[in-house]
Amino acid sequence: MQSPARERLLLGPGPSNVPERVRQAAAAPLLGHLDPAFLAVLDEVAERLRRLFGTGNPLTLPLSATGSAGMEACLVNLLEAGDDAVIGVAGVFGERMCEVASRAGARVTRVETPPGTALEPDAMAQAIERVRPKVVSFVHAETSTGVQQPVAEIAQAARAHGALTVLDCVTSLGGLPVRLDDWGIDAAYSATQKCLSVAPGLAPVSFSPRAVERVGVRATPVQSWFLDLSLLGGYYGGDRVYHHTAPISAIFGLAEGLRMVEEEGMDARAARHREAAAALVDGLAPLGFAPLVEASIRLPMLTSVKLPNSLQGAPEANLRRRLLDAHGIEVGGGLGKLAGKIWRIGLMGENARTAHVERLLTALRAELQPA
Amino acid sequence: MQSPARERLLLGPGPSNVPERVRQAAAAPLLGHLDPAFLAVLDEVAERLRRLFGTGNPLTLPLSATGSAGMEACLVNLLEAGDDAVIGVAGVFGERMCEVASRAGARVTRVETPPGTALEPDAMAQAIERVRPKVVSFVHAETSTGVQQPVAEIAQAARAHGALTVLDCVTSLGGLPVRLDDWGIDAAYSATQKCLSVAPGLAPVSFSPRAVERVGVRATPVQSWFLDLSLLGGYYGGDRVYHHTAPISAIFGLAEGLRMVEEEGMDARAARHREAAAALVDGLAPLGFAPLVEASIRLPMLTSVKLPNSLQGAPEANLRRRLLDAHGIEVGGGLGKLAGKIWRIGLMGENARTAHVERLLTALRAELQPA
Repeated sequence: MQSPARERLLLGPGPSNVPERVRQAAAAPLLGHLDPAFLAVLDEVAERLRRLFGTGNPLTLPLSATGSAGMEACLVNLLEAGDDAVIGVAGVFGERMCEVASRAGARVTRVETPPGTALEPDAMAQAIERVRPKVVSFVHAETSTGVQQPVAEIAQAARAHGALTVLDCVTSLGGLPVRLDDWGIDAAYSATQKCLSVAPGLAPVSFSPRAVERVGVRATPVQSWFLDLSLLGGYYGGDRVYHHTAPISAIFGLAEGLRMVEEEGMDARAARHREAAAALVDGLAPLGFAPLVEASIRLPMLTSVKLPNSLQGAPEANLRRRLLDAHGIEVGGGLGKLAGKIWRIGLMGENARTAHVERLLTALRAELQPA
Repeated sequence: MQSPARERLLLGPGPSNVPERVRQAAAAPLLGHLDPAFLAVLDEVAERLRRLFGTGNPLTLPLSATGSAGMEACLVNLLEAGDDAVIGVAGVFGERMCEVASRAGARVTRVETPPGTALEPDAMAQAIERVRPKVVSFVHAETSTGVQQPVAEIAQAARAHGALTVLDCVTSLGGLPVRLDDWGIDAAYSATQKCLSVAPGLAPVSFSPRAVERVGVRATPVQSWFLDLSLLGGYYGGDRVYHHTAPISAIFGLAEGLRMVEEEGMDARAARHREAAAALVDGLAPLGFAPLVEASIRLPMLTSVKLPNSLQGAPEANLRRRLLDAHGIEVGGGLGKLAGKIWRIGLMGENARTAHVERLLTALRAELQPA
């Protein structure tokens, strides 16, 4: 085994560290993708994902690709060429939704808000009323800025005008309560490497019966064969018709990660994320790092902090590299317009612990003290 | 760790068993997807994949999804709406190529051959000459029938008329020699769970400079954002621009699997596959199972056998289930028109060993002896 043995504390925007227990579960001997013993694990994963997503949606499954493919699966199934979509853009991942929807041939109406702020439900509602879109899409926890967005109000406005709703839960699932059915969300996607603390590679997705129905009456085939919900449903929906070979080992790992989430309980887990984030913000203040996002809409699992002037630009990249090389700690830089200006510090899943915050603060203090 | 501990001998069309060494490599502690220590592993994987694909293509990478997504990546990048494609159909996977290409808006000309036979290079050449397609696409090792197809002749005809060539190497890579550059293949995809004996979840792909150039002059964006070669190239091509989070653990596993392939050497590995297949065919004959495919075009890693009349239909499914439950051995049934009529027995990667053939034969003899 020549793989790098070095241990990192992964405090960037994901992946987070994966506990030994989960890594060993994924290392179990393989089963075939039609083996009843594997299908039982798949059923267990679906059931646990439903509870975590807060939904009764039968079509809830771990898509065989990363979170970005989950986004694409939701949008290309629900949109046809010429359909209108209203998309909330509060950062890179809302932006990406616009790109993906455009490539599906949709007419995209963007509702934008500056980086570090949350979408205004009224602005979304006005656009929805004006455009009467087929789909309204936005991000729960915007990973590029660390902002938590209002879900229920926007979804309500969308539903009131007959639109289907798509929600990005990549960074929220497992760290914040998610309640798809209460909120009225028709399609949601997440990823395994954030607050679930499972290796990257799968995108948990869930589709409401309304969404499935809409896919069933499309005038044109879904542009992606790999992501076609009706074909995915043939395997994951219970008939177990071969579509593609499910990633057995990754699903073993996800099953174990979901067991750990439920053993802890989502309330305790959410509280743990809040506590760790509070300790981080408190500890960073004396070092000159101020939160980018105001407290009421700040994510617990991903804190973006403005860098002191002295660190902006090249110095911040050097400092991140020193943290990695000398202390084994990874933190994330800014994306897009925020590159070089902010850091994104993730305390996700198993990593949301004050001991990890202390380790980061100790390393930072050592690096920042006058020479 | 509650994941099923039961061990299966996986002798279906994939997944094959994954050696402990590979599973433990994948269970190593995580690194970030931009960590230099991880990027070194990614570089190593790309270099080993190039050698195995027989190519110098710089853009060679493990796509973050299963083999079917690899097929889709090749076709949707190289085809635009209205483009002509000539596709060789010798089974389910050639058929799937037609479906994927059609969804990309291509005009598909099918060149078909009955299940169990190989494409006629002349028939392909005639279609290519008539249609002058942008893309010619076909399967090296057709997993639904167990047929090995002629690659060099078809690729030559395609190149002679300026077409780009796409080759499915899902079942061949790691079991048969693959020589993309010698053959003149522009885009190829494979999967990890067949002759590489790595867990399913990644699709090794390789694109020639001509293919990359073609993508660069497209008139329309690639319909899939997730599979867009120019975006994938931004990360995998060396600049390491964030596109999606690479599946770190799966890539650790692939790296180890590729190390094992090279330690053995591809010649020895191919010979091992041939020997195991010969032992299988010899051993099955007295039991009434005859090869579907004539010897000259029969795959070594996947043998399809016609079932004795007494086993066709429901009895074959029952017998497969008994093999699984009582003997821990999985074999594959037929797909499509061949369902209920053939079995597909895989001796792939680490599983291509005469000891495994013996175990299967012993189990079959026990099940088939008169009560």
